[in-house]
Amino acid sequence: MKSVALIVQKYGGTSVGSLERIHRVADRVSRTLQDGYRTVVVLSAMSGETDRLIKLAQQVTPTPDEREMDMLLSTGERVTIALLAMELRGRGINARSYTGRQVGIITDSAHTNARIARVTADRIRDALEEGVVPVVAGFQGINEQSDVTTLGRGGSDLSAVALAAALKADRCIIYTDVDGVYTADPNIVPAARRIDRISYEEMLEMASLGAKVLQTRSVEFAAKFNVPVEVNSSFKEGKGTLVTKEDTDMEAAAVAGVTGDRNQAKITIVGVPDKPGIAARIFGTVAEAHINVDMIIQNISQTAATDLSFTVPKADLKKAVSIIQGVAKDIEAKSVSVTEAIAKVSLIGVGMRSHSGVAAKMFEVLAREGINIMMISTSEIKISCVIDEKYLELAMRSLHSAFGLDQTQS
Amino acid sequence: MKSVALIVQKYGGTSVGSLERIHRVADRVSRTLQDGYRTVVVLSAMSGETDRLIKLAQQVTPTPDEREMDMLLSTGERVTIALLAMELRGRGINARSYTGRQVGIITDSAHTNARIARVTADRIRDALEEGVVPVVAGFQGINEQSDVTTLGRGGSDLSAVALAAALKADRCIIYTDVDGVYTADPNIVPAARRIDRISYEEMLEMASLGAKVLQTRSVEFAAKFNVPVEVNSSFKEGKGTLVTKEDTDMEAAAVAGVTGDRNQAKITIVGVPDKPGIAARIFGTVAEAHINVDMIIQNISQTAATDLSFTVPKADLKKAVSIIQGVAKDIEAKSVSVTEAIAKVSLIGVGMRSHSGVAAKMFEVLAREGINIMMISTSEIKISCVIDEKYLELAMRSLHSAFGLDQTQS
Repeated sequence: MKSVALIVQKYGGTSVGSLERIHRVADRVSRTLQDGYRTVVVLSAMSGETDRLIKLAQQVTPTPDEREMDMLLSTGERVTIALLAMELRGRGINARSYTGRQVGIITDSAHTNARIARVTADRIRDALEEGVVPVVAGFQGINEQSDVTTLGRGGSDLSAVALAAALKADRCIIYTDVDGVYTADPNIVPAARRIDRISYEEMLEMASLGAKVLQTRSVEFAAKFNVPVEVNSSFKEGKGTLVTKEDTDMEAAAVAGVTGDRNQAKITIVGVPDKPGIAARIFGTVAEAHINVDMIIQNISQTAATDLSFTVPKADLKKAVSIIQGVAKDIEAKSVSVTEAIAKVSLIGVGMRSHSGVAAKMFEVLAREGINIMMISTSEIKISCVIDEKYLELAMRSLHSAFGLDQTQS
Repeated sequence: MKSVALIVQKYGGTSVGSLERIHRVADRVSRTLQDGYRTVVVLSAMSGETDRLIKLAQQVTPTPDEREMDMLLSTGERVTIALLAMELRGRGINARSYTGRQVGIITDSAHTNARIARVTADRIRDALEEGVVPVVAGFQGINEQSDVTTLGRGGSDLSAVALAAALKADRCIIYTDVDGVYTADPNIVPAARRIDRISYEEMLEMASLGAKVLQTRSVEFAAKFNVPVEVNSSFKEGKGTLVTKEDTDMEAAAVAGVTGDRNQAKITIVGVPDKPGIAARIFGTVAEAHINVDMIIQNISQTAATDLSFTVPKADLKKAVSIIQGVAKDIEAKSVSVTEAIAKVSLIGVGMRSHSGVAAKMFEVLAREGINIMMISTSEIKISCVIDEKYLELAMRSLHSAFGLDQTQS
């Protein structure tokens, strides 16, 4: 029955950051229609607007109420959807703006960081039926009490993917300031190239390991409902990266990408008594403080005591150290030391499942460059090494080249 | 059953024009609660914000779609209600912001100038029951399709009065930049004094004759549902003006106030053939162009032709003259002349019903000052004279004094 393909397209804050840029978004929407697609547009607030509103709130009171924060923040997208709908209507395109509520994005009540419970999208379906181009406010929804909620930073990606899932759209295109997902950050690895196709799993690892192209939650959502997501540039024409389910084409390369992350710090507890229950006690206390521990290493114990190292986000380091110093005293450990100058370099690829020797080759490359490995962690599709921060760029470039990811000069 | 009096208080754009002023509004709300009242707060957007948004829209397209305009404009009040609710909560007052939709202000679909159909106010009743101070977005509602609408310029007054009517509030206080309704514009008549009490009817005449304190529609609404409305200053303490139904106390003075209006211009058609149907033809044509004719004078005809004069808003003068020149040709009138330098001075008072001789005295006062009267119109509680514009201030001051309105020096 459905003959005309449906595309959900989302534009971020920089893509709607001025009237001139909104004008260019309208050009692109117009071209999508001329190309014969039906389309739904999802917008963020103008870049800087959300920060401006947060600042305003913090001037009023140091800890603004979160329900009121959502009332305040949800105005930013309402401005951009109204302006784009006006612009499109001015061009004779039957566009209509819709808020998160009008779209039926129903969330829980975790104000400022709500989770989507369901998307009804009735008005959008009706609008599409009537040939209307819906222009939807991203980042926002309502809870069961009909109060406005917001989805947290980057939440507009999630709005777009959730709407694409509800409408069974053929594709969700995330227009942003980069033209896709790269094999590595091109600022660090000049030979990095745009990936044409990447699996949800790889994208999730890339996102959580520092590639900031797509919000992690939106990739999880896309994977769950099998929404093909394209990342593309709103500033230039050309191909982007398609994030989709893993298929046979993807088995070619063992490694899809290299990431680097400087946001971790290492804590070592020296001289931990080697008794059952000690690790549980240490990490239980850290978890209670809502601090995410990433990697953990326990040296092999040759005496009655061992050393325990783990990494935490740099932002939580101070809090973590103060907690750990208390625990160290209780368990009669010798001392606590901290290393901030670390970085994590990772290789990601679903091909690792079928290619053996990726880890061995990684260690070899690092060794050849004289880079010492402090910690290692692996998953089915990822290997991460913690190294001295100063070697991060070198490590990324060497690995990128050694695993055949460098672009060929044309 | 209802023991604690309920006050709806509304603050206009200048009263919430900065964070410092929002802080002062919070002070006043806090004092209202300490004085033992329950209260609902209605807010406008920060002064200048609505104009900023309109300008933004007009940069996008010269004739912005009105539904989208409402989506855009309705953001201004959402910002102020969120900020005030945060501020109050920061002080330990259980305040909550509510949009026009959440309050249940249901309107027709005349976007940018919608009329209120009904006010459900269920959430506000529940909130008051729970001891919450509702902070409500003025100026906005939703139509039956759940689309955002706005109530036109000054619409926040209407929101406050409508909410007061729905909640059967004991009083609706409109806080603004003046401390009440004056017997005349104090900028023109320094001896003008604040009126303690004025009837809805008088207030309506004052408002439509140029006193810009209250929006006309909100006075009509207050009269219909008998809501006592107080106009007071948000910047200083003290008594304001109570707008209420006419009572016996009000019969004391014949004249409650003097107004002046410079916004009219006079058109005269010279040598109009004195035949039936000519006036209908002239004013029918003007009405079709949506031009409001205020006063009309036809000279007594001594020949076969007469002169016909009438006033129109200065803003419509150009359009009116071009229409009238066409009609004048058709009906074979001699010529069309225009006088822009006119003004209308009016006396208003329900006391005119029982006091005779007000008109005679008005003409006498103007004659004594050497002011020629060009046109006269009267209603049950009003007399207006069109005079040469240059005499307007003199006329207002003389009449104000002659009718005993000057304040007594203390």
